[in-house]
Amino acid sequence: MRLSTRNQLPGTVVSVTTGEAMAVVKVRLDGGEHITSSITRDAVADLGLAEGSKVTVLVKSTEVALGVED
Amino acid sequence: MRLSTRNQLPGTVVSVTTGEAMAVVKVRLDGGEHITSSITRDAVADLGLAEGSKVTVLVKSTEVALGVED
Amino acid sequence: MRLSTRNQLPGTVVSVTTGEAMAVVKVRLDGGEHITSSITRDAVADLGLAEGSKVTVLVKSTEVALGVED
Amino acid sequence: MRLSTRNQLPGTVVSVTTGEAMAVVKVRLDGGEHITSSITRDAVADLGLAEGSKVTVLVKSTEVALGVED
Amino acid sequence: MRLSTRNQLPGTVVSVTTGEAMAVVKVRLDGGEHITSSITRDAVADLGLAEGSKVTVLVKSTEVALGVED
Amino acid sequence: MRLSTRNQLPGTVVSVTTGEAMAVVKVRLDGGEHITSSITRDAVADLGLAEGSKVTVLVKSTEVALGVED
Repeated sequence: MRLSTRNQLPGTVVSVTTGEAMAVVKVRLDGGEHITSSITRDAVADLGLAEGSKVTVLVKSTEVALGVED
Repeated sequence: MRLSTRNQLPGTVVSVTTGEAMAVVKVRLDGGEHITSSITRDAVADLGLAEGSKVTVLVKSTEVALGVED
Repeated sequence: MRLSTRNQLPGTVVSVTTGEAMAVVKVRLDGGEHITSSITRDAVADLGLAEGSKVTVLVKSTEVALGVED
Repeated sequence: MRLSTRNQLPGTVVSVTTGEAMAVVKVRLDGGEHITSSITRDAVADLGLAEGSKVTVLVKSTEVALGVED
Repeated sequence: MRLSTRNQLPGTVVSVTTGEAMAVVKVRLDGGEHITSSITRDAVADLGLAEGSKVTVLVKSTEVALGVED
Repeated sequence: MRLSTRNQLPGTVVSVTTGEAMAVVKVRLDGGEHITSSITRDAVADLGLAEGSKVTVLVKSTEVALGVED
């Protein structure tokens, strides 16, 4: 499936912290940066996410803000 | 100002497309990937964004989805 | 690719309104309801979206609010 | 109150999973599809959400991505 | 309708800028601050929004980031 | 750093509820209104947020919906 989602970055899961309802997944991008994702606990289970999982980070362009140094 | 926003990636603006209300800004991350941001036309003007502007890409973790190959 | 995105609903594009930067796409879900999506003009072009296109509507669970009648 | 929110779909709560801070609510739309919503634990308590609650699912159009099959 | 949306602030529209697809609406909160909202052109038309319209600003808690001064 | 984020409102933290993965932070705006923010547990720790912390509430304009009374 091709997505309208403009931002798709390949990476590898480095940690998964699971709560009762939500989970926080940290990903190291292939470019070296780290990304944090907050998804449901169910999504972690359904995708079988764990340290070392290869993933694509997906971010809709309307969710991307920009900052500039003064 | 330090931000709760987990994802902060440095980059450089490569293009700005401006509509009446909104604008689309494309950024090349220092890591080599490209990111698209949809912000208001006013924000582009206030920050003085143009090709070559140094920016930080900001994404809240709740906005980050993940995909895995089948 | 399997997605963490919890909400994936099949439908058909009924209209595309394109601005300079953004576009609004209306979709009739197979269940009969209508959905409006605001995506970039570039995404519409890349996916070749037009009236009649078969699509999957994707919504992250953190973006879903709920209302109850008083 | 009438809302700018373009997407308003009627449904019934089928499950509520509550964590310390957040909760995940699953809703069966009247059209038959299922939707997952991540809201605060406080919102669940304030609205009195439980299995069987009649709700309206609300999604802002800027939060709706689209996919097309290859 | 009561909403799960935690943040509901009363205000008055001070300007509406309309593009082909999207619109930007500026609101002065009763508390004196100003808020900018990006919604579809259709939503502006459906709600009949214009300078002076009384509105409630609605923001889901998952969309609220925080900053602290260094 | 100056931000594209249109909505920046000063306030004071009144409570922090921390779960395993996520946290909910309530803020009293200087204008008197209250705002709820759902951020990661890590963000709360990194910013050292606690009752009495001075913060800026940040909301991207694409996340702001509007309602009008019938």
